[in-house]
Amino acid sequence: MVLTGIHHVGVAVTDLDESIELYKSALGAELVKRARNEKEGIEAAFIHTGTGEVELLSATRPDSPVGRFLAKRGPGLHHVAYGVTDIAQALADARAAGLELIDAEPRMGLHGSMIAFVHPKSLGGVLTEFVET
Amino acid sequence: MVLTGIHHVGVAVTDLDESIELYKSALGAELVKRARNEKEGIEAAFIHTGTGEVELLSATRPDSPVGRFLAKRGPGLHHVAYGVTDIAQALADARAAGLELIDAEPRMGLHGSMIAFVHPKSLGGVLTEFVET
Repeated sequence: MVLTGIHHVGVAVTDLDESIELYKSALGAELVKRARNEKEGIEAAFIHTGTGEVELLSATRPDSPVGRFLAKRGPGLHHVAYGVTDIAQALADARAAGLELIDAEPRMGLHGSMIAFVHPKSLGGVLTEFVET
Repeated sequence: MVLTGIHHVGVAVTDLDESIELYKSALGAELVKRARNEKEGIEAAFIHTGTGEVELLSATRPDSPVGRFLAKRGPGLHHVAYGVTDIAQALADARAAGLELIDAEPRMGLHGSMIAFVHPKSLGGVLTEFVET
C-alpha cells in the first residue's frame, strides 16, 4: 500500500463543545465540520491543524465504542488515520500482512471518504484507520 | 500560533526492532533514522508515512518517562506533534492561553529540530509537542 500521510489523529473527549473551544483558543486551530453517527454512538468535530486534522470524538451513549474507551482509559489519543490512494488495495495488503481488520470492507466515514479500521492488537496497541484520499 | 500540520505521532513500543519491521512489512512505511537519548532514556525510530511521520519510542530503562508510560498504559499512542513556524511564539501563545508547559523553553529534539512539550492535562489528556519546521 502507499500511505499519503497522516490524514488525522482521533482524540476521545468528554465534552465536544469545550474541546472545540480549547483547540481554537489554545492552538489557534479552526473547526472544519461537525458530524454525528447515531449507529456508532459518536459525535465528532474535525479541527484543521495544517496538513492533517484532529478528529475530536465524543460518545452519544456510554455503551458505544468511544464511550467504553472513555470509561476505560479516559480522554486522550484514540486512533491515527493514514491516507491511502486505494483503500481496497490497502485492506488487501493489510490482510496479506496478517493484520486483523475491524472493517473487512471499506465503509463511508463521517468526513465523506471511504475508511476502514485495523485492530490495535495487530499494530502495537494503536487503533489504525485508512482513509482513501 | 500557526500550526503547519501534524509533524508526527509518537507511539510507545516495547521492542523497537520488531516495531520497525511491523511498520515496514504491514504498512509499507520506511525507516528514516534511529536516535538514542540516554538522558531521557529513549531510543526512537522515525518512520516515513507520507506527510507526517511516526516516531516509535522505546525505553532504555524502566524509570524513564516512556518506561513509566509503558508500565502504566502499555504500548500505543503516546503523543502528537504539530509543526509550528515559530516555536518561541507558539510557547508564548500557549502560556498566554493558560496551558501548562513541560518545556518552558524550546530544546533540541532527536530529529534535530527545536521542540517543546505541553502537559496532557492542559489539552484533554493528549501529550502535545510543538516542532519548529
